[in-house]
Amino acid sequence: MAKKIFEIDLTKKMHEQKHPGHNRWHPDIPAAFSVEPGEVFKMECLDWTDGQISNNDDPSDIEKVNLKRVHVLSGPVHVNGVEPGDLLVVDILDIGTFSAHEWGFNGIFAKENGGSFLVDHYPKAAKSIWDFEGIYATSRHVPNVKFAGIIHPGLMGVAPSQEMLDEWNRREKALVDTNPNRVPALAELPDPDSCVLGTLKGADFDRVAKEGARTVPPRENGGNCDIKNLSKGSRVYFPVFVDGAKLSVGDLHFSQGDGEITFCGGIEIPGWIELKVNVIKGGMEKYKIKKNPAFQPGPVMPHYNEYLVFEGISVNEFSGDQLYLDANTAYRNACLNAIEFLKTCGYTGEQAYMLLGSAPVQGNIGGIVDIPNACCTLSLPKEIFTNNIIPKLDE
Amino acid sequence: MAKKIFEIDLTKKMHEQKHPGHNRWHPDIPAAFSVEPGEVFKMECLDWTDGQISNNDDPSDIEKVNLKRVHVLSGPVHVNGVEPGDLLVVDILDIGTFSAHEWGFNGIFAKENGGSFLVDHYPKAAKSIWDFEGIYATSRHVPNVKFAGIIHPGLMGVAPSQEMLDEWNRREKALVDTNPNRVPALAELPDPDSCVLGTLKGADFDRVAKEGARTVPPRENGGNCDIKNLSKGSRVYFPVFVDGAKLSVGDLHFSQGDGEITFCGGIEIPGWIELKVNVIKGGMEKYKIKKNPAFQPGPVMPHYNEYLVFEGISVNEFSGDQLYLDANTAYRNACLNAIEFLKTCGYTGEQAYMLLGSAPVQGNIGGIVDIPNACCTLSLPKEIFTNNIIPKLDE
Amino acid sequence: MAKKIFEIDLTKKMHEQKHPGHNRWHPDIPAAFSVEPGEVFKMECLDWTDGQISNNDDPSDIEKVNLKRVHVLSGPVHVNGVEPGDLLVVDILDIGTFSAHEWGFNGIFAKENGGSFLVDHYPKAAKSIWDFEGIYATSRHVPNVKFAGIIHPGLMGVAPSQEMLDEWNRREKALVDTNPNRVPALAELPDPDSCVLGTLKGADFDRVAKEGARTVPPRENGGNCDIKNLSKGSRVYFPVFVDGAKLSVGDLHFSQGDGEITFCGGIEIPGWIELKVNVIKGGMEKYKIKKNPAFQPGPVMPHYNEYLVFEGISVNEFSGDQLYLDANTAYRNACLNAIEFLKTCGYTGEQAYMLLGSAPVQGNIGGIVDIPNACCTLSLPKEIFTNNIIPKLDE
Amino acid sequence: MAKKIFEIDLTKKMHEQKHPGHNRWHPDIPAAFSVEPGEVFKMECLDWTDGQISNNDDPSDIEKVNLKRVHVLSGPVHVNGVEPGDLLVVDILDIGTFSAHEWGFNGIFAKENGGSFLVDHYPKAAKSIWDFEGIYATSRHVPNVKFAGIIHPGLMGVAPSQEMLDEWNRREKALVDTNPNRVPALAELPDPDSCVLGTLKGADFDRVAKEGARTVPPRENGGNCDIKNLSKGSRVYFPVFVDGAKLSVGDLHFSQGDGEITFCGGIEIPGWIELKVNVIKGGMEKYKIKKNPAFQPGPVMPHYNEYLVFEGISVNEFSGDQLYLDANTAYRNACLNAIEFLKTCGYTGEQAYMLLGSAPVQGNIGGIVDIPNACCTLSLPKEIFTNNIIPKLDE
Repeated sequence: MAKKIFEIDLTKKMHEQKHPGHNRWHPDIPAAFSVEPGEVFKMECLDWTDGQISNNDDPSDIEKVNLKRVHVLSGPVHVNGVEPGDLLVVDILDIGTFSAHEWGFNGIFAKENGGSFLVDHYPKAAKSIWDFEGIYATSRHVPNVKFAGIIHPGLMGVAPSQEMLDEWNRREKALVDTNPNRVPALAELPDPDSCVLGTLKGADFDRVAKEGARTVPPRENGGNCDIKNLSKGSRVYFPVFVDGAKLSVGDLHFSQGDGEITFCGGIEIPGWIELKVNVIKGGMEKYKIKKNPAFQPGPVMPHYNEYLVFEGISVNEFSGDQLYLDANTAYRNACLNAIEFLKTCGYTGEQAYMLLGSAPVQGNIGGIVDIPNACCTLSLPKEIFTNNIIPKLDE
Repeated sequence: MAKKIFEIDLTKKMHEQKHPGHNRWHPDIPAAFSVEPGEVFKMECLDWTDGQISNNDDPSDIEKVNLKRVHVLSGPVHVNGVEPGDLLVVDILDIGTFSAHEWGFNGIFAKENGGSFLVDHYPKAAKSIWDFEGIYATSRHVPNVKFAGIIHPGLMGVAPSQEMLDEWNRREKALVDTNPNRVPALAELPDPDSCVLGTLKGADFDRVAKEGARTVPPRENGGNCDIKNLSKGSRVYFPVFVDGAKLSVGDLHFSQGDGEITFCGGIEIPGWIELKVNVIKGGMEKYKIKKNPAFQPGPVMPHYNEYLVFEGISVNEFSGDQLYLDANTAYRNACLNAIEFLKTCGYTGEQAYMLLGSAPVQGNIGGIVDIPNACCTLSLPKEIFTNNIIPKLDE
Repeated sequence: MAKKIFEIDLTKKMHEQKHPGHNRWHPDIPAAFSVEPGEVFKMECLDWTDGQISNNDDPSDIEKVNLKRVHVLSGPVHVNGVEPGDLLVVDILDIGTFSAHEWGFNGIFAKENGGSFLVDHYPKAAKSIWDFEGIYATSRHVPNVKFAGIIHPGLMGVAPSQEMLDEWNRREKALVDTNPNRVPALAELPDPDSCVLGTLKGADFDRVAKEGARTVPPRENGGNCDIKNLSKGSRVYFPVFVDGAKLSVGDLHFSQGDGEITFCGGIEIPGWIELKVNVIKGGMEKYKIKKNPAFQPGPVMPHYNEYLVFEGISVNEFSGDQLYLDANTAYRNACLNAIEFLKTCGYTGEQAYMLLGSAPVQGNIGGIVDIPNACCTLSLPKEIFTNNIIPKLDE
Repeated sequence: MAKKIFEIDLTKKMHEQKHPGHNRWHPDIPAAFSVEPGEVFKMECLDWTDGQISNNDDPSDIEKVNLKRVHVLSGPVHVNGVEPGDLLVVDILDIGTFSAHEWGFNGIFAKENGGSFLVDHYPKAAKSIWDFEGIYATSRHVPNVKFAGIIHPGLMGVAPSQEMLDEWNRREKALVDTNPNRVPALAELPDPDSCVLGTLKGADFDRVAKEGARTVPPRENGGNCDIKNLSKGSRVYFPVFVDGAKLSVGDLHFSQGDGEITFCGGIEIPGWIELKVNVIKGGMEKYKIKKNPAFQPGPVMPHYNEYLVFEGISVNEFSGDQLYLDANTAYRNACLNAIEFLKTCGYTGEQAYMLLGSAPVQGNIGGIVDIPNACCTLSLPKEIFTNNIIPKLDE
């Protein structure tokens, strides 16, 4: 029996596909097809921007990207017999690129259109194209690095219930209301512009477009977690909020650094992912996996042996103000410290920044209790550099 | 030639030792001895509380610990020929416990005296004692786990310059002033009570005691970074701020989870550390390692193959309020999710909490740009459990 | 520009393919196509037996396999500008299965037709079919194991010079002549029966068929090394003996244990391999890589953390005779010890034997100087078993 | 309660120690002390030659070493309640060097006195001294390498029964009798010269000295396995042949390459080892661990990421004769190939040879069925070299 496949034609936009996919979260987006527990199936995916970025040296497509279009997702898939309260167990059996598309992109969003983690240091748009030779990536825009990708879906999630969706919209609106004109915005609220909602039409489309949550953040349903180690061979336990769970997936990355700090993003690709689903009836309560998914990573990620690790603490790098156990600031300083070091190796700041977004760098919480400073670390694998970057002792 | 050794008598307090050590940061604390670049020497260390915690089942010593006494450090060591602007390169050649002291402690500080990362969930003091058999730790207070320690110094640093010290005191006081009566406090300011300042006496003692920065946070000089992977075999690059660098070390941990979330802390031990120092003249500018230390981890940490990973996002767990890319909250939720799961394996919440503080769990930044939610993960190595904790699929 | 591809039609035998391939080593087998240094190309491969084994429960196809037909190889590929004395550098960029063929086979050859490493213990033919779900393999014939494949080409090599070929034939005939009627045979000599020799025809075919070396053993040109870690991401340095090097590849394995002890073999599959070639002019002398290839393994092999290791020494297991530093006997005893143990876990001897041939078990030389006993080890990764196989202490 | 310790005074020979130890295997050598199952105890050990080798640049002590003196072992330890048929479970809790002895030696034995794996290539004695700084070893005799030791006991074993001992002596004599004048010898038979037999005296001493098996080879009781990964944190399952098991240990190595190919040996040291014993009653039959020990390696060995791997096949390197699946010859050729390569990196043959004996190189069985050639590999970790040894592509 042939596998069920969510097919993608790379020459078409998501709403023109045989299966149109979606780019908002809503319980009423119809399933593309249904599967049985134990069934293996394949999802083909467009890149998260719906093909807005080109393989060239000009970052203007990054600068002007339509962010209302993201993320175009494949699905939803209805899993027969799965109900709210269950755990949906999803095995990521394999992931790959299309042989007709052996490249991906990383970019820094402009402050005015998206921004990024180091937006106040790097407010302008930039782009790097990464070429793949089998398991390896290199870039003409970031020289002297080569690494094996930890290919993964940046985004995988199940549908929220209507109650959960309402709560998302409430809490995010409350945040935006604290500073509605901020650039970049504090959050992206529902917006019918550029919606893709599967096969929905007419009044249903309009209603769902108006209510549907944006796919940008990770939430209780999984969503855009951007966890670089959620790679092939992983098993994910999703709490289930609607009948059939309604699983969707997209935003594939050939590779990503912890934090996905340039926002656009890891090495972004279209591609395919092979999945198998199972169920644990009543599993949310049984295992208390209720607020967010949990997962077991797969066994075939590249392992590195030698790292150069940069530390950062929670003191604002412009004002010198002391913040209280602020891990965001601590990690930002660790990233900035790494970038300053990489400049001494011959990289521009933008190149170093895009490298940290693309390569399998690790971001860790060091200490989070040592008042008032959080300590975070950024670990750079030495082996990804074709030159030796380690500082040399005086002879 | 015999190695230089900072000797410790486990039956005495830090101020009674042959080398009295110190528990504040100040450029004027006299060096215990000096070494040449290339020299190997040994530092013996008391536990960070100066021996206040006993090997028993009663947490009242944790509850009433005198936190003005921490951290009692060994040093400083003056490195000949090292000047401000250089990088001091410190090799951690080996670390070990004392054969007369084959146990350590982990504890949750009470909200009124220190607090911890999950203080609003676990406001009461608790204690777990961990026993060592060679490289392994087990605890009568946290059953069914056994793991190899990643033994490391929670705290290692060089002396600040007077200007740097003044800036620390300024910025930390400004933070405290925003909420001076908060419990737990936002930061610990200089306090002459319970000071140990090496061989300083009289007016010099009084001045340094009044100005000396507390050792609690990590700062530009390294300090209390609590990085679990800064273990044996590591090489650290410290920016240098005073002549001779004045290296100090203490707060040894037999093991620690990322974040050291119970605050008290990892598995706290007295012990010894063997160090070798080298120098890179003018290295701060040459390699732009100026704001914080950088390091290469050692090669002999235990590697784990199978993890169960919990995710957390930046939504306040009590109010449901949406926070903006708040990695602290996201990691707190990941920890809480792990604890809820561990309760289904038979642990109490306090046991699970202390396990996350003690065992080599990994805390990672997942996505830090996906507005408005940061995503952090807590990775629990399956191999440390003597039972299989992985959720089971329905048959 | 489209990649060059050695295409395979799974419904046809090797001699019927568009590119007919070959199953003997000879310098005069014509190249299928030529590539430039730096070029990436793809080789599709049939399984080593040319499709003689079926996905069913009956081992009679293993028992009666035509071994004169093996190994059907894809190639040769001529690399422009490469000459004898150079090193041909081959990057294994990626390897995969065909989506129409998601299974492989392992088998024990019968003593009368091939034999195997433990032939005197397991003289009868047996077969296990392994099914793939993405990166994982399981078998209905060997229950309770699941592991990620380390997919690799069992056989990759360059063409020998005529002189080298003559020497191979000389030395192997001399060995066979010491016991020409042995069952199983000591070596397989040239045999025109069942030859496939690319596009060769007529007298050239007859001459080459008569002289061409069998592909069974590894030799100076690489060949059938059956090294399980020569997997995706690896870089191989081949000494070059003829103009253009004439690279061939085949005998893909989804997985294999060290030693490939059942002979048939690892988990045998048809599939594809993506390669890139480079050259080091005069590299054989420059790096003294002259007698055999050398290689760097790739970074994405599954890593295991917990092993159960069996030892074996060089005492004959039937006679009790003491052999002198005989690593073959020592490894055989380590394998037998592992099988005896696995029987206590519920496996039959044949199942255990096929598991050791298929799963990523490690075979190591322990001591090879401690007269008179060699010590070899067989390391079984605990993680591949769905049950816990580790012996339990008395309570 | 104080731990039981087998104490060693480094200034004395084994027969002069408080616990005299032994250097032959015999069931009647009296136990030094007894322990209970579950008990932790410490064994201090002399180096295997009983202190015959000095820290200097002159290999004449290696050349003239008295091999009748080896290996001086610590023990035996009697484990209460353990009987033949049980499994003795030994945890290697930790291992270390003496702070007064931070160096070790590796040597090539002369052909006339011991020989080595490559004796026909390197017949003369050589010596390298390795200095330790914490977990790392370097050598003034083998420059530009630095690596973390995988410290382990080369030799650990239980006493044979009288029947087993008789069988050892029978089978080894039969081997020697095939070529009694061979240099080096095929095996070492019982020899009263230089015997150390614990506290035995008089007629008992004479009898045991005459019958006691040499400690050179690994055998059914464990013994001199020289397995580099049997390191700290390991758990060993020994079959038991006499009441109390009578466990002995010695021949500590700071590090060793697979095969211990120079014979003298790994990096040989005196030191200490902390052990814990448990029992599985009737475990030999229950788990079929009857012919040799099995073990689980510990979790803190250094992991390497990048290897350069050399292959070898079973063709005699002098005569060109084809051997039949001869793994000894295949591994010898892999070693020789590695040495030829290392000469291009600036090492002498002797230096390269001693490096392969000392550093954590891996020796693996590749294919052991591909008639007539066995294929073995020698994997050299790139990270142990302070220079980059990887061959460079033509630009």
